[in-house]
Formats: sequence, structure tokens, C-alpha cells
Amino acid sequence: MSDQRLRRAQQVMAAQGVDALLLGPSADLRYLVGYHALPLERLTLLVLPVAGEPVLLVPELEVARAQDSGAGDHVELAAWSEIQDPIALVVERLQRAGAQRGKLAVQDRLWTAFTLGLQAALPAAAWLPGSQVMRELRLRKTPEEIAALHAAGAAIDAVHAAVPELLRPGRTEQQVGRDLAERILDDHDEVNFVIVASGPNGASPHHETGPRRIEAGDAVVIDIGGTRQGYCSDMTRNYAVGHVPEGYAALHRLLERAQQSAVEAVTPGSSAEAVDAAARSIIAAAGHGAHFVHRTGHGIGIEEHEEPWIVEGNPLELEPGMAFSVEPGIYLPGRYGARIEDIVVVTPDGVARCNHRPRELVVCT
Amino acid sequence: MSDQRLRRAQQVMAAQGVDALLLGPSADLRYLVGYHALPLERLTLLVLPVAGEPVLLVPELEVARAQDSGAGDHVELAAWSEIQDPIALVVERLQRAGAQRGKLAVQDRLWTAFTLGLQAALPAAAWLPGSQVMRELRLRKTPEEIAALHAAGAAIDAVHAAVPELLRPGRTEQQVGRDLAERILDDHDEVNFVIVASGPNGASPHHETGPRRIEAGDAVVIDIGGTRQGYCSDMTRNYAVGHVPEGYAALHRLLERAQQSAVEAVTPGSSAEAVDAAARSIIAAAGHGAHFVHRTGHGIGIEEHEEPWIVEGNPLELEPGMAFSVEPGIYLPGRYGARIEDIVVVTPDGVARCNHRPRELVVCT
Repeated sequence: MSDQRLRRAQQVMAAQGVDALLLGPSADLRYLVGYHALPLERLTLLVLPVAGEPVLLVPELEVARAQDSGAGDHVELAAWSEIQDPIALVVERLQRAGAQRGKLAVQDRLWTAFTLGLQAALPAAAWLPGSQVMRELRLRKTPEEIAALHAAGAAIDAVHAAVPELLRPGRTEQQVGRDLAERILDDHDEVNFVIVASGPNGASPHHETGPRRIEAGDAVVIDIGGTRQGYCSDMTRNYAVGHVPEGYAALHRLLERAQQSAVEAVTPGSSAEAVDAAARSIIAAAGHGAHFVHRTGHGIGIEEHEEPWIVEGNPLELEPGMAFSVEPGIYLPGRYGARIEDIVVVTPDGVARCNHRPRELVVCT
Repeated sequence: MSDQRLRRAQQVMAAQGVDALLLGPSADLRYLVGYHALPLERLTLLVLPVAGEPVLLVPELEVARAQDSGAGDHVELAAWSEIQDPIALVVERLQRAGAQRGKLAVQDRLWTAFTLGLQAALPAAAWLPGSQVMRELRLRKTPEEIAALHAAGAAIDAVHAAVPELLRPGRTEQQVGRDLAERILDDHDEVNFVIVASGPNGASPHHETGPRRIEAGDAVVIDIGGTRQGYCSDMTRNYAVGHVPEGYAALHRLLERAQQSAVEAVTPGSSAEAVDAAARSIIAAAGHGAHFVHRTGHGIGIEEHEEPWIVEGNPLELEPGMAFSVEPGIYLPGRYGARIEDIVVVTPDGVARCNHRPRELVVCT
């Protein structure tokens, strides 16, 4: 699979006039060569010329790790020792490929310090973000990838099913969060994040699970995700503890309608921004436009956030195999918040959800 | 404290001729303004001009999170919405400060995609890594920081003390790793990493804790660390399960001598490379030079790996307050490995260790 993906990347590069692709530790690197490199201060870098053989530069102390990953079956592994300059080795490889004055695509998340080092050593090169190449490979998922997303969705469904056992007045967000993290690991390989946002904390979409004690009458937003066999889950539901706070039930029903409408807008030929608008128009019509402070969704796959971005201003046409979250939210500062999130996949004739738990507000008593 | 640190950063910038410092989500940002930002695809960026007021650009949906951190007490918070271009906002702020053609220091780990966007929008600027500024602030720890490192060291000492209860033949590395992660959380806020490298896996310094079952006669390298009240622990010890494999006891005694010698080389006025040489010369003299494939240590503080690098070729003079690991290792591919690691702090008259567990090989029976 890696050989095929490497060839496909080279085809995309040729079509875009890119001379070399430089990938540090990232999902892109995992995707192309299967190596889960550590994002540390020692440079790991795949140098993939548009024509010719790729090489993976690896710190000497991580060679065994790289070999264990099987990456060496697809690309040459070249170790650099603690007293060598890895930038000089990259330059040498690019010169060998005749790409030192070319268009170089650098993985979006490579640390800036490395890129500045490369730019200083290659003053005649032009630079562009690696996502310009990699999005062409990763944006449309294969049937195997879609199956993996459905399996991850089922796994996180099961964790949400257990929430009513865990949410009780007097417990802290952190206690509940720790329990959720353990449950996620029952059928995931990694916990990616756990957001337990209780009461007024629910009004902060990226609230950091904290020491607040959950009280009766709290609305609680729970947004959790992990990685299962290389693919991510991500799912949000809302709970009320003991009883439903005033005004929350109606707000939640509004949000259910908005999320349903956005999911129904997902179909081949529609657009990313149309999905966003489907949710946003309903929320805005009810007077809560200013309380929906984020885009409607993000792509998902081997990364928890990847393209496509489901946001106003993104005209991207939806195609079968694209996978993303649909997660409108409404946030009332000082009171509470709510967000409903499912992962969906564009199918040849519409949409399939990866999450199947009921979307209604769950009251935990 | 933040106000003082911001002023100190501006002083360093003035001395270096840097016009503005740009910090994305990073330890540097936490250090300067106390905000633990999420390293996501939405840009969070502190713009600190050499003179004048700093501004922290934050995605709108993370404003509550940023406010909770207290960062707003020290810098202006400016939210950008999902349909704005954050790069344009950065450019505007730099123009306002007159720095758009100046020397701009960018945090080392900022994602390259952001830096490429900034470079395209600011073609007349010169770029340098932010560590050039930040190292001057972070390299010498204050008494409070040193106390925090000692406390983190005591916390990880306690986890190593529990290892003999956990290491038994038949258990997998992952099972032991999960137990260790839980113990780390008993007196840390976060688990940074857990390496359980058993038998031949011990020969890979950055081995990924995996499904291998531990057997009687295995040597096991355990390297663990977490964050406690903002400061990191990092400590490695070696264990043998049931009985000591052939040749390992002598190898371990050699390593103990090398580590002891390196720690004794730590004193004000000595150098980073002298500490490295102190360990390396002993290991090389015993014929294992080629089996010690990494530097002797790395700085530690609010990050698990930071400056100073204890490596050949680094002439940095040691000064009181510098804190780093001393962790020589010997790795015999296919057989086993060993590494002994303590965190040390340079004191006015020598050195203090943050880890106090015995360094001898522990046989678990």
C-alpha cells in the first residue's frame, strides 16, 4: 500500500510542478510509509523527489523504531548521528535529485525551526505547504478507510452509552474525564481528547476538563474521541444531571433540528459551505447566530482534524468518500452550552453516519 | 510574573535587534503569558513587539479558554472568527508596530504552514527561530523552578519505587505501561511518556511500549516522565525479571560508573560537551562507544526536552540554575539495552540531583 501511495504522491507532485515533498513526523508520514515518528527536536524527514527514490532521514537512536515500523521496506532509511547536521543531509539529497532550486512542499506541521534551517540552506528554492499535495491523496477515503471510521464510530458510541453511569452530582469533571478515558481505551488504541464541560463551562467549546464539581441541574457537554486501528472517532452528546436547567430543553431541540438539517445537506455535488449554512441558518433564525461561534465541522480520518473544513467560504464540492464531523453548537456564556456531533461519510447517493446513539438530551438521574 | 517575563523578553529582543516575537501554542507561550493553547489548525499567536503592547490572537471559540487562563490580565486578547484570515490580523498588528519589514522571531515549533503564510504576506521581513530569544529567559531556572523540578523528581522516584510490584513474567509491556501511567498520575498532572522496553526491545532507546510479553531473564529499561505543576520529570532505571541475563550485570556496572562520572562533571564553568565526554569516554574505553548512540542529556523544565543539549560539539558553559538529564545508555542490538537517567541542576558550587532512587540494577523476583 505504501509503494502505491508514494507513487500516487509523485503523480500529484508532477501534476502540480512540485519537485520534492518533505514530510516530518505527521499523519502524512504515517499515511505514506507507515512510520509513527516522534515529533521531537531531532529531525525525522522523508525526502520524496518527484522522480526517483525517497529517503527517510532518521536520528540514529530511532533507527530500530523506524525499522520496526516496516518503513524500510518502502524507502531507504538513512541514519544521522548526534554530531551530524541533518539539514545538510537533506540538502545533499535534494541536490542529488536536482531539486535544490525547485518547488519544495513542506509538511504543514513541520516545526518552523526546521523550515527556517532548510530555507537558509536552500535560498533558491520556493516553498509551499505539503497539504497541497497530500490533500489529493487523503481527502477521499477508500472503502477500507470508511469501514475503519465506522468501527471507530461504533467504539465511541459505546463510550457515550456508559455516560449515565458516570455523571453524578458531586463528581468533578476530571473524575468523569478519567473514567471516560479508560472506557475509550477499551476499544481504541489511544485517547485523543476528553472534554467534560459542565454547567457554565459548557459555553466554552474547547473547555479544558477541570476540577469543577458537577451539580444537579447542570447541563454537561461531553466531546470525546480516540484512535482505533489508525482511524479517529469524535462524538459529542449533551447530558443533564438530575434535572434539565431552564430553557435548555428548547435550545437542545433547536440544535437537534440544525444538526439533522446539516446532515441531510450532505450529498455528492453539495458543498462544504452548504452544509455549514444548513445548520447555521436554523440556529440564526432562532436568534442564536452569535452563539454558534465555530464552523460546522472538520474532516476526520487518520487525524482527528483534517480537510475538508465545513465552513462558510469553503466552496469545496462534496464527493463520495469524504468524511467529516457535523457538529453545530450553541453557547450561552455564563449559563450553558450544547453541541451535537456525528461523523458522516459522503456516499454515492447521500450520506452515512458513523455514530448511531440517540441525539436527544439524556437526563441522568 | 508574566508582566516581568514579557518585559524581559522585550529586553532580550532589543539587545538582539529583533523587532517582534511570534509565539504559537508552545511552552514558550505558557511561560510568557500562562496560556496552555491547543496546537490545532486554528492559529493562536502572541505578537510581542520589541516596544509596545503585546496582543494574543485567539480563535473565537477558544476565547473563554484563553480568558480562564488569566492571560488577559497581561496581554490584550483579540478574537478572530471562523471566516476571518488570522494571518491578515497578524500582519496588521505588525504594521501597527512598524515591524512588517523587521527581524521576526517565530516560535520554533509553530507549524510550517502558518510560517509560510506569514512569509508570503510579509515578503520584506527577515525570519529567525524564536528560541534565540526565549532561551535567554528559560535556560537558567529560578529557585522556584528548581524546587518544582525537585518535587517532580520526587514524584517520579515514587513511581520507580513501585516497579518491582508491576514487572512479572507473562505481563506485556503495554500492561505494565498502563499501570505506570496510572501511578504517574497519582502525583503528576500529566503523563508525558512511558517507555517499557523489555529484552531485545531495550536496545531501541525510543522503543514504543508494545505487546511483547515480558519473560524471566529479561532486562527491562523503564523510562518515564510526567508534568507536575507545570514542570517535568524524566527518569530511567533498569530492571531484570527473575534473573539477570548473561553479561548484563557487568554492563550495568560500567553504565553506573559512566553516569556517576558525568554527574560529577557538572559544575559551574564546566561545559555541556564536557559532561557528555565524561560519560562517553568511560563507555568507549570499555569498547562500547558504538553502542552509546545518543547524546548524554537534554535540558528540562516546563518542557521534557529543552535546552541545554548535553552533546559533543556544544561548548555552552554551565551556569547555576541550568537543569538537564544525565542519561548515558548502552544498546546491544538483538540482546538488551540499559540507560540510567537522573535530572540534575547546576548549583553555585556543583550539582544537585532531582532523583534519588538507587541507580543499581534491580532484580524483580
